[in-house]
Amino acid sequence: MNKFWSDNLDTLTPYEAGEQPQDKSYIKLNTNENPYPPSDAVLNAIKLTTSDQLRLYPDPNAIKLKQAIAKFYSINTDNVFVGNGSDEVLGFTFRALFKKTGAIQFPDITYSFYPTYCRLYDINFKTFPLTDKFEINIDLIPEDNSGIIIANPNASTGICLAVDKIEEILRKNSNNVVMIDEAYIDFSGNTCIPLIKKYPNLVVVQTISKSRSLAGLRVGLAIADAGLIDGIQRVKNSFNAYPLDSLAIAGATAAFEDKEGYINNKAKIIDTREWTIMALEKLSFYVVPSSTNFIMAQHKEMSAKSIYLKLRDEGILIRHFDLPRIENFIRVSIGTMEDMKIFIQKLGRILA
Amino acid sequence: MNKFWSDNLDTLTPYEAGEQPQDKSYIKLNTNENPYPPSDAVLNAIKLTTSDQLRLYPDPNAIKLKQAIAKFYSINTDNVFVGNGSDEVLGFTFRALFKKTGAIQFPDITYSFYPTYCRLYDINFKTFPLTDKFEINIDLIPEDNSGIIIANPNASTGICLAVDKIEEILRKNSNNVVMIDEAYIDFSGNTCIPLIKKYPNLVVVQTISKSRSLAGLRVGLAIADAGLIDGIQRVKNSFNAYPLDSLAIAGATAAFEDKEGYINNKAKIIDTREWTIMALEKLSFYVVPSSTNFIMAQHKEMSAKSIYLKLRDEGILIRHFDLPRIENFIRVSIGTMEDMKIFIQKLGRILA
Repeated sequence: MNKFWSDNLDTLTPYEAGEQPQDKSYIKLNTNENPYPPSDAVLNAIKLTTSDQLRLYPDPNAIKLKQAIAKFYSINTDNVFVGNGSDEVLGFTFRALFKKTGAIQFPDITYSFYPTYCRLYDINFKTFPLTDKFEINIDLIPEDNSGIIIANPNASTGICLAVDKIEEILRKNSNNVVMIDEAYIDFSGNTCIPLIKKYPNLVVVQTISKSRSLAGLRVGLAIADAGLIDGIQRVKNSFNAYPLDSLAIAGATAAFEDKEGYINNKAKIIDTREWTIMALEKLSFYVVPSSTNFIMAQHKEMSAKSIYLKLRDEGILIRHFDLPRIENFIRVSIGTMEDMKIFIQKLGRILA
Repeated sequence: MNKFWSDNLDTLTPYEAGEQPQDKSYIKLNTNENPYPPSDAVLNAIKLTTSDQLRLYPDPNAIKLKQAIAKFYSINTDNVFVGNGSDEVLGFTFRALFKKTGAIQFPDITYSFYPTYCRLYDINFKTFPLTDKFEINIDLIPEDNSGIIIANPNASTGICLAVDKIEEILRKNSNNVVMIDEAYIDFSGNTCIPLIKKYPNLVVVQTISKSRSLAGLRVGLAIADAGLIDGIQRVKNSFNAYPLDSLAIAGATAAFEDKEGYINNKAKIIDTREWTIMALEKLSFYVVPSSTNFIMAQHKEMSAKSIYLKLRDEGILIRHFDLPRIENFIRVSIGTMEDMKIFIQKLGRILA
């Protein structure tokens, strides 16, 4: 540890993003990006941003974007927070609503950024186990928690918890904040955003990186009761008044206004996902039921690590996590139908 | 305080950005933006960003931008950190290098975000007084500090401390980090970046919001010994893997490559500043010597608050801080020569 570092800086556990290799061109099925381009409306909105908008500070409150999101979900703008990707939004929200005495709870298999935020902000956490089928059994969530976060659908399992189960969690934990990270919800359809009107302890976090094809624009959002949004806003304004640049505000606003492009895009991915699941099952994979734009699957014979390495040699990038319980699963993002046909073909040859 | 908020969330002191009113069109001399547009090279680089770059995650390490900055300053890429505006960069750096036992030190009049970061991260701070002429007397900086941050030139005074004085601070405090916030340095010219090769305790923070006309793009940077940059990187990767979107990376890279545009732009502003200072002195203002793109000035009779309000009625926005020691000063950003002529003309009428 460098002698000038803050105390405990070496105890942080920085997040490791999926590889973005530059050595050759791959079919990239490793970071759950959308294979289709953002809609023309988005590209136009970015092009129409003036040099004056670049010269001046952006709207620190990004009100146009909040209005577009509020309209899309039939809520008020004071129920909306926007930030630089859902990672930043999660970071602010952990600090604003989870830094308390006690420990927060999340599943033993989930998005690896959650423990990272906890270490950054000195928040205690505990995990509860997913079932053998990687499902959440809500009876296994301890009631002596100081907050709960659930990715729904869960990463990296892809399994979605029903809205009535989430409502049960909200009722049982009415004194604590329950955060639902809906990064992949659009490929499932069961958002719990309507519940914010009934539960002042609910925060829903979303992103435009997946279903809206804009991972490169870095915009995420939180939706909650205005009192919780106020708290998140306090943290944001204690850190960075303007996390969204003028181009990101323009592009993301157009993305929420273009309902048709959004619906078509996600429908194509869901179709391709269903085709890929069938093809994997034919190749003797056990496929975890997916409500997302990725699939987690285990082959009955070959190890996940060999499959990952052999596909890499063949120019296809997928992901393998060397973690307890899932070390024998591959995780594959849904690309275009063409991408997935090549993937299945090469996979068939590797397994033959 | 909302019952779901984290402990002490109500004790934060969120930053208040200068007003961006939407009621009518103002000559905007209140937030130190650059009056000239960014260069064509920047606009083109943004336009050339492909829909594939928007669909995919950006380079989490923004290596192209780091290379352009390293080339501009004749340093290595591992001496460069980039983030979402210098506010975010300062935030990460406070957490990475200032969160220690003891208290950090900064001047009693300076950028109001510094105490805000300290409250966010539970960092103790103390202030040392500027002289009667708003200068830094380095003998007044207590040696029992756990870090020092100095805005140079200082905000909102506009006064620049000479590089040899900064070197003296670095030598006297060789066991602690000394951060120099150079948001406005390009209008002065005395960057202390070359000192990073000699002092492993120095961090220099800069922004493209002022001299490079890109406040709307949100890019800031820190330059330091690789060991300190590593520490800042650890915090960033514990919070948000991708704070810079693909458009911001492209635009900022082009901005650092366009040396000529940068030199011309700042030369025009310095000329206009000198003209404005003379005009203000003719109107009986005491003008604090400015090394920035703003001027702090006090009228011998009329209060700063009345001047601010009367100019606002006339469609000109300047800034007035209701703070100890500077409550009788106005702060005026340097606009185009045309803007400043109108400002001086209206000011003359108000004072007549």
